[in-house]
Amino acid sequence: MPPAEPPNPPGQVWAHTGQPFTHREFDTLVLGAGRMGASCALYLRQFAPTLSLLLVEEGGLPNEDGATLLAPGVWSGLGVPAERQREAGWTRAQLETAFGDISFQTRPLVDLHAAPGANRVPSRDLDLDAALVDPALVDTDALAWASVGTLAATYRPGALALNAAQAAIRAGAHLMLNTRAQLCGDGSVTLERLTVTNTHQIVVHETHRVRARTIVVALGAGGPHAIDHDLGVHSAHARAYRQFPRLNTSSTDASPLLRAHGLTLRPQNGGYTVVPAIHHRDPAGYVPVGGKLTGVPTGLRRETLEDLVAAMDALPALGTDALETGRSLSDVPGAWFALPHGKPDGLPLHEQVAPGVHLLLGGPHADTLGVSTAFDLAARIAGVEGRPWEELE
Amino acid sequence: MPPAEPPNPPGQVWAHTGQPFTHREFDTLVLGAGRMGASCALYLRQFAPTLSLLLVEEGGLPNEDGATLLAPGVWSGLGVPAERQREAGWTRAQLETAFGDISFQTRPLVDLHAAPGANRVPSRDLDLDAALVDPALVDTDALAWASVGTLAATYRPGALALNAAQAAIRAGAHLMLNTRAQLCGDGSVTLERLTVTNTHQIVVHETHRVRARTIVVALGAGGPHAIDHDLGVHSAHARAYRQFPRLNTSSTDASPLLRAHGLTLRPQNGGYTVVPAIHHRDPAGYVPVGGKLTGVPTGLRRETLEDLVAAMDALPALGTDALETGRSLSDVPGAWFALPHGKPDGLPLHEQVAPGVHLLLGGPHADTLGVSTAFDLAARIAGVEGRPWEELE
Repeated sequence: MPPAEPPNPPGQVWAHTGQPFTHREFDTLVLGAGRMGASCALYLRQFAPTLSLLLVEEGGLPNEDGATLLAPGVWSGLGVPAERQREAGWTRAQLETAFGDISFQTRPLVDLHAAPGANRVPSRDLDLDAALVDPALVDTDALAWASVGTLAATYRPGALALNAAQAAIRAGAHLMLNTRAQLCGDGSVTLERLTVTNTHQIVVHETHRVRARTIVVALGAGGPHAIDHDLGVHSAHARAYRQFPRLNTSSTDASPLLRAHGLTLRPQNGGYTVVPAIHHRDPAGYVPVGGKLTGVPTGLRRETLEDLVAAMDALPALGTDALETGRSLSDVPGAWFALPHGKPDGLPLHEQVAPGVHLLLGGPHADTLGVSTAFDLAARIAGVEGRPWEELE
Repeated sequence: MPPAEPPNPPGQVWAHTGQPFTHREFDTLVLGAGRMGASCALYLRQFAPTLSLLLVEEGGLPNEDGATLLAPGVWSGLGVPAERQREAGWTRAQLETAFGDISFQTRPLVDLHAAPGANRVPSRDLDLDAALVDPALVDTDALAWASVGTLAATYRPGALALNAAQAAIRAGAHLMLNTRAQLCGDGSVTLERLTVTNTHQIVVHETHRVRARTIVVALGAGGPHAIDHDLGVHSAHARAYRQFPRLNTSSTDASPLLRAHGLTLRPQNGGYTVVPAIHHRDPAGYVPVGGKLTGVPTGLRRETLEDLVAAMDALPALGTDALETGRSLSDVPGAWFALPHGKPDGLPLHEQVAPGVHLLLGGPHADTLGVSTAFDLAARIAGVEGRPWEELE
């Protein structure tokens, strides 16, 4: 439904400190241009095109240190409670069509188990019939049973964030990059425009104070800390550091997603990305460190190593050189992920934490329910009733 | 059943580096003189009085940095699986009579809940009838239901370790204090005798290499790391850092133990010690840090603060100055506890991790099942069949 007014001119982008910034007020500030913030900004422009909006991002687009860029990008109905299944289905349709090319690809998800159970078939048959199980990856004696989800899909969350932000700008949102935001507790935000010195230090070039009626805090794993530190709002949300080691066993566009022993193997760039389970929050003050495997230092943290060792018999490729465990933490890509309510399976949510201030959290299920949660918040801010997934079967 | 031989002379104690140590071999080494190691040493002397035994402790007796000294000392059948209930009952009887004065005291444990359930009575009635619920501590509107365990008891685990070690020495065990042990992987152990310099640094004064046919690793939370680091034996055991803030609300010898919201309030020294729940392991490399409560630094870690805040409505005393949260980590007593199998409710266990090397782990249920687990290991090493709790009803 196009708005009745003439289309807005595109928004302005402040990418570096050479561009003067003189604004003092917006209707809405969205802090963080990961996939949650960027898609919320896009939906806000669609629902409320008359409200001025500034999207603020500490890094580039997408942020190289953020969770969006490393998120597995696996849409799956597994683990989604019944009451949010329709919402997940709506999100899947949006991912497929609404955000341009984000490498969306339907793939089966083969969930492998040692024991039989509901909807499980012998995994050996899958190998023979549909080539769904690569014998180089899976020991079908150890994981003799499998259920297959045919509706799973993969996509690139970083591309989603980029495309959503660009669409938001075309729809009139303003974007400020390389800018750190601090909530002031009085409806205003301090923006610190960052620059890099000759000696590669990141420093604050200038600060601005900007007011807004509505502020969306979409800072990922840093969101709960921001509302706690800046606003004094205590929450039980937490975070966990997750690493994604590469497994150099060949995959194709037709390769299925595999799940076993809590691990997900996601076909990517001709190999696999290993997605470890999140078992629980990491404590405040934890600094990720590499672990040791029988005395040899690795770039994988100890807890993830233990998970991989436990799965090696069933997934023998994990016990070979095909697994890139690295020698130091920087060798294995990793990021902090938000855990809504502090739970390892917390679902995406938004909540009002102060007058006009909304916290928007993605977390472990952001691949499947993140976009709809951002949509829901945008609709709520714009005063729009009804949600499209409520009409779905 | 006294042994047929004449009683052994008492063992020797090496407390400081001024005492020469020339031994090169023992039948058994027990590393760690916390309650697990000390009671295992005592039982070994009783089962196998002809086997020479050296008990090695890195600190004093008991170690001021160890988990034994800070363990809550709460015997309770709650959380003990059915198949180990008889063993827990046997342990209770030992605690009551076999270790001298360890301040053993039977107390009711009042388990408080918001909702009714099996064996629960209105907690308000407990207040009126038996003065089991102190209204200054518990909001009986919020925690309207309670079940009462009449067999719970409190004792001092530090006194248990001390008395068990002294009894072991009287029975012929040798003890070496202020000595760090490192497993060498060939049935020998390097002993580093520690001393303190004029500038209060702890340094190694001299090292000895000692052989033993049997080695018991009873190093508490450090045990799994020792077998991993020294022997290359990978295990899934983990550890968690637990703090015990003091609550200055008056208690007497007759005050019950209170449990609510996952917290246990243990009457101690005229007030209460707050025993927080262990939710999960702490990651390898975690260094405990104090948290912040709406910006104010505290000595309690963030996760424990969150638990206390969640319980403040039901236990209003936690929201007052009666709770000592401290300003820095050192203000609130805390220690690392082992988590057998990495689980927050892991039960005490022993396992052979290499030829002649046994890992002995206490953990969260060591108050209730630690002594019997140490007994079981000593009996196994001595080749003794049958366990006394198997004969109990």
